[in-house]
Amino acid sequence: MEATLINPLRAGMRHTRTIDPCIMVIFGATGDLTHRKLIPALYNLALEQPLPAGFSAIGFARREYTNEDFRKQALAAVNANSRRRPVNANVWETFAQGLFYCPANFDDPAGYDRLGALMDQLDRERGTAGNRIFYLATDPSYYPTIIALLREKGLARRGDRNDGWSRIIVEKPFGRNLASAQALNDDLSTAFHEGQIYRIDHYLGKETVQNILVMRFGNGIFEPIWNRRYIHHVQITAAESLGLEGRAGYYEKAGALRDMIQNHMMQLLTLVAMEPPAAFVADSVRDEKVKVLRSIVPLQDAEIERNVVRGQYGSGWQGGEHVLGYCAEPGVARDSRTETFVALKLLIENWRWAGVPFYLRTGKRLTKRLTEIAIEFKRPPYLLFKGTGADEMQPNVLSLRIQPNEGVSLRFGAKVPGQEMQIRPVNMEFFYGRSFGVQPPEAYERLLLDCMYGDSTLFTRRDETELSWRLVDTIAHAWSTMPASSIGEYEPGSSGPRAADELIERDEMTWRRL
Amino acid sequence: MEATLINPLRAGMRHTRTIDPCIMVIFGATGDLTHRKLIPALYNLALEQPLPAGFSAIGFARREYTNEDFRKQALAAVNANSRRRPVNANVWETFAQGLFYCPANFDDPAGYDRLGALMDQLDRERGTAGNRIFYLATDPSYYPTIIALLREKGLARRGDRNDGWSRIIVEKPFGRNLASAQALNDDLSTAFHEGQIYRIDHYLGKETVQNILVMRFGNGIFEPIWNRRYIHHVQITAAESLGLEGRAGYYEKAGALRDMIQNHMMQLLTLVAMEPPAAFVADSVRDEKVKVLRSIVPLQDAEIERNVVRGQYGSGWQGGEHVLGYCAEPGVARDSRTETFVALKLLIENWRWAGVPFYLRTGKRLTKRLTEIAIEFKRPPYLLFKGTGADEMQPNVLSLRIQPNEGVSLRFGAKVPGQEMQIRPVNMEFFYGRSFGVQPPEAYERLLLDCMYGDSTLFTRRDETELSWRLVDTIAHAWSTMPASSIGEYEPGSSGPRAADELIERDEMTWRRL
Repeated sequence: MEATLINPLRAGMRHTRTIDPCIMVIFGATGDLTHRKLIPALYNLALEQPLPAGFSAIGFARREYTNEDFRKQALAAVNANSRRRPVNANVWETFAQGLFYCPANFDDPAGYDRLGALMDQLDRERGTAGNRIFYLATDPSYYPTIIALLREKGLARRGDRNDGWSRIIVEKPFGRNLASAQALNDDLSTAFHEGQIYRIDHYLGKETVQNILVMRFGNGIFEPIWNRRYIHHVQITAAESLGLEGRAGYYEKAGALRDMIQNHMMQLLTLVAMEPPAAFVADSVRDEKVKVLRSIVPLQDAEIERNVVRGQYGSGWQGGEHVLGYCAEPGVARDSRTETFVALKLLIENWRWAGVPFYLRTGKRLTKRLTEIAIEFKRPPYLLFKGTGADEMQPNVLSLRIQPNEGVSLRFGAKVPGQEMQIRPVNMEFFYGRSFGVQPPEAYERLLLDCMYGDSTLFTRRDETELSWRLVDTIAHAWSTMPASSIGEYEPGSSGPRAADELIERDEMTWRRL
Repeated sequence: MEATLINPLRAGMRHTRTIDPCIMVIFGATGDLTHRKLIPALYNLALEQPLPAGFSAIGFARREYTNEDFRKQALAAVNANSRRRPVNANVWETFAQGLFYCPANFDDPAGYDRLGALMDQLDRERGTAGNRIFYLATDPSYYPTIIALLREKGLARRGDRNDGWSRIIVEKPFGRNLASAQALNDDLSTAFHEGQIYRIDHYLGKETVQNILVMRFGNGIFEPIWNRRYIHHVQITAAESLGLEGRAGYYEKAGALRDMIQNHMMQLLTLVAMEPPAAFVADSVRDEKVKVLRSIVPLQDAEIERNVVRGQYGSGWQGGEHVLGYCAEPGVARDSRTETFVALKLLIENWRWAGVPFYLRTGKRLTKRLTEIAIEFKRPPYLLFKGTGADEMQPNVLSLRIQPNEGVSLRFGAKVPGQEMQIRPVNMEFFYGRSFGVQPPEAYERLLLDCMYGDSTLFTRRDETELSWRLVDTIAHAWSTMPASSIGEYEPGSSGPRAADELIERDEMTWRRL
C-alpha cells in the first residue's frame, strides 16, 4: 500500500513510499518492552497510517499462549499504554486478527520450524509475500541463539524482492563492551547483511531529536554559526529525577555510562556535531555521524580521572520524601560500584570543532528530569575587548530541549527598559507542543514504520556502535583500576557530585542550572 | 548631581555621569507638543531620575500667561498625558516651582532680553550656572527668527564650562527639502556649533529602536550572519491604521515621504545596516550611519516610477466604519496630490550589503498599526539545489517589532510532529513588555535626559539629515513631473496600493502580511 511520508532527514521532500505487507516476529513477546512499547506502537500505526491490510505480528516466547491469549494480552497492553485511547473497536478488531503467537523456547529448533510454517501460511492467507521483520526484544543473552537458529532454519537471509525481504531489529543493550558488541555484530553478520540490520536507539525516534537535524539543515541561519568560530562550548544533559525504579537486574550490569552515554548521548552528540551529509539517506547520514565519533580525541587513561566524573546517589530527601541510596535499593549489591551519574568532557578534533569542548552529563535522582542540548556561543568580540563591565554580558545560548517541554529557546541580550540602560539576557521561546497542538507519535511508532519502509537512517550502523563502545571501554577500563573512592556520592535531588562541577569550572564555565 | 546611567550604545557599561543643573527654554510652550510630550516627559524625569534640584523650565510663547498659568497648564498636561499617574503631589510641588513663563512674540527682541534676564535670575536663585537647553517646538517657520535672536542677544553660544553650556533641540520637520534643511543648518551654525545642536527624531528614543543596536552588537550570534551572504532582503514597515486625525495643515505640506521616510524610516534603515562603530560614542555611531546613507545607490529619475510607489487612501469601510478618503478630510485640498503611502526599494552598495534589497513602506489607513524591521534570510543552500520540494521551505525571518507588542521573533523551520515528516515555519518569540514587566520610559524622556547629559548619540547629525533629504528630494522631484494618475488610490484597511505589491513581487518576493 502507499503512504505519503517524508523522511525526517530529507527535509521538505515528500515521498510516496510503499509499505509492503509484512510479518513482524517479536522475540520476547510476553516481556515488558512488548507490553509497554511495541504492541501499543503497532496499534497506533494501524490506527493512523494505516498499516497494510495483511500486516501480521507473531509473538514468539516461552509462555504457553494461544493466539487468543496473546490478543488478550495485546489488548491489555494497548488499554494500558497506547498513546491514543480509548481503543477504537473496529481498528482493534482488524489489527487483532493479524496477531499470532508461536510458543517456543528461544533455543528450540522445532519452534523455529513452527514459526517458519506459520509465516508461510500467513504469506498465503494474508498476502505478506515473504516479508519479515524479526524483533529481538528478549534478554540480550538469547540474541546469539536466536540469530543462529534464524540462520540455520533459512529464515534470515532472503533473496531478492521476488521472494520478499527480511530485516532484524536489535534492542539495546547492544553488547556491554566493545568485544561483546563486535561479537554480536559478527553473529548478526552471519545471518544478515548490514542493510538488513536495524539497531534501535529509541532516542532517534523522538520528534525533538529528529528536529535537531531539521533545525540545523532546514534553516539558513544556524549552520553559518555552528562551528568553533562562534560556539564556545556545548552541554548535553540527560537528567532524571527518578532512581532505579526496580530495574536493578539490568542497571547493576550497565550503569550510567553504558545505559546512557554509549547510545543516547553519543547519538545526540553526533547529531549536533556532524557535517551536513552528502545526501539525506541512511548511509550518508551515518557516514557523517561516524566521522564525528572518529574525530573525538581518545581519552588517555591518565586524563580520565580528570575529564570523566562518576557518581552514585546516596540516601536522602527528595521532593519531601526520604529515598534510598543506590546501594540500598532492592537488588543492588551493598558495595555496588555501579555509577548512577556520569559527567565528561570530550573534544572533537576536526576543522569545525577544534578547541570547542563538549560537556556531557547524565544521572538518576537529580534535581529534575531534563534532556537538552545547549549550544553556548562566544560573547561578542568587541565588548569583551573593552573590559569595562562587558563581563556582565551573558553569552547567547541556543537550547534544544528534548524533554520535557520539548522546544527551542534562544537566550540573547536585550535592553532593559528604562533610562538606565542595561542589557539583560532574555529568552525567545518556542514550545513544540504549544505550537503544533498535536500529540506527537511515540519514538517506537516512527522507528517501526521506518523499518517497514526499509529506511535505516534513524538506526545505528555497526561502525557507529563499535566506535561508541571503544570510547566507553576506555573509560570503563580506567575506572576498574581506580579506588571506590573515585565514585562521588551525591545527594538525591542535587545536580550530581561536586567533582562534576569542578570538571567544568576548571575551564571557567558552569553547568546550566537543572 | 550624579546619576548612574548606561548609554544605550555603550552596552553593558555603567557610567556615572553628571547632570548639571540647567534651564530648558521651550519655544512654543503653549503648543501641542509641549502639552502632550515635553512637560509630561520632564515631570516623569523629575519623578524617576530625579532631575537636579535647580532644574528649571521656561515656557516661551505668545500667549499672555503668568508663571501660575503655565504651571496650571503644565499640571493639566501631566494629568492628561503623563506615563506615570496619578501625579505625586510632593514631586509635582518641587517640579512646578521650577516652571516659569516668558510671554513674547518669537520675533520680538525685547522678549529675548526678558528671557535673558530671567535666566540670569534663575542662575543666581536656583543655581543653574549658565546652562541652557533651548527647545524649538514652534512652527518651523519661526526657527530662523528664534535662532537669529538667540545669537544676537548673546544667549546661544556660550564659552567654556566656567560660564555654562548651551544646547539647542530642534523638532521635526527639519526643513521640507534639502535646500531648506541646509538653510536651517546654516542658520543654526551661525549661533551654535554642531556639538550644541540636537536634532530630535523621537524614534531614536524608543526602547525597541535602541534595542536594534543591542541586538546587533550586544550578542555574538547575529552579527556573523548580518550581511549579504546570509540575508536575502530587509523589509521595514511603519503602518498606521488611523487616517489624518485632524493634522491636515501639517500633513498636506509633508506627505508620507517627508513625514516618515526622510526621518524615522531612514533612521531604522541606518541602524539595521550600519557597521559596528569604532566606539559607542555619538560621532562614531553617526559616522557609521552616514556611511550607510552615502552607500545608498542614488535613484535615477527613470527608476523612480519603478522603485518608488506612492498612494493615497480613498474612502471606504474600515473596521466596520465608513471613513473619508484623504481628499475629503477637513483641511485637505479636494485635488490634493499628497501621498499617504510610500513604498520603495533601496540598494546599499557596500561590502556588506551589495545586492541585498531593502524594501520600505509606510502609510496611513492601512490594515493595522505595525512598525517592524524584518530581516529575511536566504534559504538553506543545500535544499535549494535539490529542487525537489525544497521550494516549500520558508526562509528564516528575524523580526524586530518596534510597535505594538514590542519584541523580537525568529521564524525557523521545525519538524511537524508526526510520522509524515514535514517542516513548517514556527516562531520563537520574545515580548519586551511581558519579559521585563516594567513600563518603559517615553522616547522624549530618554532624549531630554540625553541632551541634559550632553550625549547626542541618539540625535541626528547635520550630514545625516542632509543626506536623507537628498534622497527624498530626488523622489519628490521625479513625482512633481509625473501625472496625478501615478498616485495609486487604495482602500482604507488594505495593505496599500496594488503597485506596492507589484514593486516587490517583481523581485519574486512578497510583503510581510500586515
